Amino acid sequence: MSKDQNYSEYSEEGEIDQEEMVPGKKTAVLVDGILLNGPTTDAKAGENFVKEACRLIMEEVVLKSTNVNEKVCEWQPPEQLKKLLDLEMRAAGEPPHTLLELCQDVIRYSVKTNHPRFFNQLYAGLDYYSLVARFITEALNPSVYTYEVSPVFLLVEEAVLKKMIEFIGWKEGDGIFNPGGSVSNMYAMNLARYKYCPGIKEKGLFGLPRLILFTSAECHYSMKKAASFLGIGTENVYFVETDGRGKMIPEELDKRIWQAKQEGAVPFLVCATSGTTVLGAFDPLDAIADICERHGLWLHVDDLLKRCYSANASYLFQQDKFYDVSYDTGDKSIQCSRRPDAFKFWMTWKAIGTLGLEDRVNRALALSRYLVEEIKKREGFKLLIEPEYANICFWYIPPSLRTMEEGPEFWAKLHLVAPTIKERMMKKGSLMLGYQPHRGKVNFFRQVVISPQVSREDMDFLLDEIDLLGRDM
Amino acid sequence: MSKDQNYSEYSEEGEIDQEEMVPGKKTAVLVDGILLNGPTTDAKAGENFVKEACRLIMEEVVLKSTNVNEKVCEWQPPEQLKKLLDLEMRAAGEPPHTLLELCQDVIRYSVKTNHPRFFNQLYAGLDYYSLVARFITEALNPSVYTYEVSPVFLLVEEAVLKKMIEFIGWKEGDGIFNPGGSVSNMYAMNLARYKYCPGIKEKGLFGLPRLILFTSAECHYSMKKAASFLGIGTENVYFVETDGRGKMIPEELDKRIWQAKQEGAVPFLVCATSGTTVLGAFDPLDAIADICERHGLWLHVDDLLKRCYSANASYLFQQDKFYDVSYDTGDKSIQCSRRPDAFKFWMTWKAIGTLGLEDRVNRALALSRYLVEEIKKREGFKLLIEPEYANICFWYIPPSLRTMEEGPEFWAKLHLVAPTIKERMMKKGSLMLGYQPHRGKVNFFRQVVISPQVSREDMDFLLDEIDLLGRDM
Repeated sequence: MSKDQNYSEYSEEGEIDQEEMVPGKKTAVLVDGILLNGPTTDAKAGENFVKEACRLIMEEVVLKSTNVNEKVCEWQPPEQLKKLLDLEMRAAGEPPHTLLELCQDVIRYSVKTNHPRFFNQLYAGLDYYSLVARFITEALNPSVYTYEVSPVFLLVEEAVLKKMIEFIGWKEGDGIFNPGGSVSNMYAMNLARYKYCPGIKEKGLFGLPRLILFTSAECHYSMKKAASFLGIGTENVYFVETDGRGKMIPEELDKRIWQAKQEGAVPFLVCATSGTTVLGAFDPLDAIADICERHGLWLHVDDLLKRCYSANASYLFQQDKFYDVSYDTGDKSIQCSRRPDAFKFWMTWKAIGTLGLEDRVNRALALSRYLVEEIKKREGFKLLIEPEYANICFWYIPPSLRTMEEGPEFWAKLHLVAPTIKERMMKKGSLMLGYQPHRGKVNFFRQVVISPQVSREDMDFLLDEIDLLGRDM
Repeated sequence: MSKDQNYSEYSEEGEIDQEEMVPGKKTAVLVDGILLNGPTTDAKAGENFVKEACRLIMEEVVLKSTNVNEKVCEWQPPEQLKKLLDLEMRAAGEPPHTLLELCQDVIRYSVKTNHPRFFNQLYAGLDYYSLVARFITEALNPSVYTYEVSPVFLLVEEAVLKKMIEFIGWKEGDGIFNPGGSVSNMYAMNLARYKYCPGIKEKGLFGLPRLILFTSAECHYSMKKAASFLGIGTENVYFVETDGRGKMIPEELDKRIWQAKQEGAVPFLVCATSGTTVLGAFDPLDAIADICERHGLWLHVDDLLKRCYSANASYLFQQDKFYDVSYDTGDKSIQCSRRPDAFKFWMTWKAIGTLGLEDRVNRALALSRYLVEEIKKREGFKLLIEPEYANICFWYIPPSLRTMEEGPEFWAKLHLVAPTIKERMMKKGSLMLGYQPHRGKVNFFRQVVISPQVSREDMDFLLDEIDLLGRDM
């Protein structure tokens, strides 16, 4: 606090009205030359800007999201896009109409992840109910740390978790919505470690034997990140061999566990995967659970959460509050501020019901089966593996390679096909589909259908378009 | 993939029109009895729902956010609120009008964190520009992993980071926007650890000496969470004593470092705080930096980020893409999917300019000074400490305690005052302000002014209202 502050209180020059008679009213207060009366925000201008922007979002995003004739993306390389967008932040602010034009440009050059033909990652199209929930969330701007500041959203999260636990078939359980799968994997690892040795929370890993976790070679890459972040080390993630379908082989798991024990290390966790990232494979959970039981290993999360993370921050989680503080779940998470992610799921669930959710899953699987049959029928398309779920991995073999023997030259050439077709589809903006190499297999496309806005026509288009873009190769 | 699938292709009964002549058109495709033609979502109904919900959000949240006559909260205890809200998810979905009523209830019973008199946590009121950016984000639903799917938002993040690095005065730098301070502290800790021993990424902490980090006793509680999560252990967070203003004492830091070394442990990180959570104290960075330099200790983040987190997930971060893959920053973060958090800040910066941001800071500090002077003037209010920044910690001493000697009975009784006033303000809905005990000091209120919508009148109201609610105690 500056000692030489210029603190003064006086009436504004020339301002004479009745209200001046009321003490404290209309008295301009200045501190260090700054007028402190009233809010400084121009609420009317702000409100109008929000209204105009909402109209723009409605027209340019929501209404266009189901139109397959719109482009999926408006590709521009980074240097070009920098020239097209006015990104520079200046000393003075921009007027509302300039900002609205900027918003329009942001929308224009952004990838339309809601588009029925955006298949690049696991997106489910535009869900109107989830979108409304997220608009409400952003407008209310809650942070789910305590019941006091987030009463509705904590109850919503509780209701969703309760229902999910019911569906799993558990009698009891607890949980928390996380920002994503990577963070969830970290939680799982931390919980397993805490179960092995609760003292880790205070003592850390110092002086402990080498801890080993087991996961399939097909697991999500976040397992390695988690092991690195949590101080376990990526070399202490033992990858268990998978079968031809990408499923963990239980006998191999058992062998790896014995190997770790012989090395003098301590197995503490098995991370099984139900639906691997690339192939969509399901590890055989029953057989894995039996092995975990025999070795006394952790297979999944439970309600140790709270004891494990609690840091008892007295400034946030006062125990002398006037309500049931068990609703203050903020101390369960590694974050402090946290969005109510359960709310969007809850809104969709309320809107379409359990049966509606079920229909979506069934239809996605039926569409996957349709696509698989089409891939089998069509010349130049080849499945990497017969899928057991919604992940469909396939190569497109252009005419020039169709008669070639499947030797090193063939694979080297095929490896270049998917990147080229991807480049062409993005520049055209007709479609977005992911590709990757995987465990010795050259670049292939991966399609995962999950959106209720996707139809059989889109599946046909997908194959037609790949063929159209690649047939000259 | 089920072997006994019922795969059929036929024309819908009774449907005869010209389009049937075009092969593949209007041909109903069923797989396992599920019709695959066209999207299943009712887009019109969905669009109308979004429109109606936007109107509701505008009226009930945006337009009311600046009105101090609106209640800050509509308090209901958990069991009561559960009865008021229809939280149950059922087999069938609910119709749009029921959903809209639900949305209205959600808004009604949620705390209005935008309200000019919500001071419970560090909120800055409703920022119209940030809100629009967040609406756009939710509508476009991007995830900032690669340039390919998030071109605009990656460039925006780069522009904001560049500008921030410029303001700090660095010639170069790199960074990433994180979901919050807790996660950022974890990154800092992980980077420091990586600097001390890059092999930790692969080998983990096994076999390493005990690692020690130093932070002030006033630090954010997330430091302990981070130490626990990263396998360092909370006992290996050495808290350095602070002076009367809550600042780390450099000489004490030096002593603690020597102590750790004598114990055979390895100091690796000093976490200084610029603006502590409760008191708003600034650690003396220059003196701390000198000590860190002498001991070879890490004081803050740098651009080791990428090497440190990279897991090189080939399915996401293909190196054979047709554009500059240095824009695919997803591998820098511990998350995979990630929201473009820089975008909302960018939009506000664009809208009000650097000068507008500066004005906000200056006005918040001036309002803080005003409040401090008022606290000093008024009977029954007592500053905990002369603030140096925007955090103002104070007690309200009700009339019955004003003549009492400041002994154990006084403090025991004063400890109960803030919780009671807090309960009353929440039940009335007039104001929300946080309180906490802190390092031997009994419960006190903490006010941090940051919102441009807050005025001198709100500061007066804050003190008037506390006095009104507490004067009978």
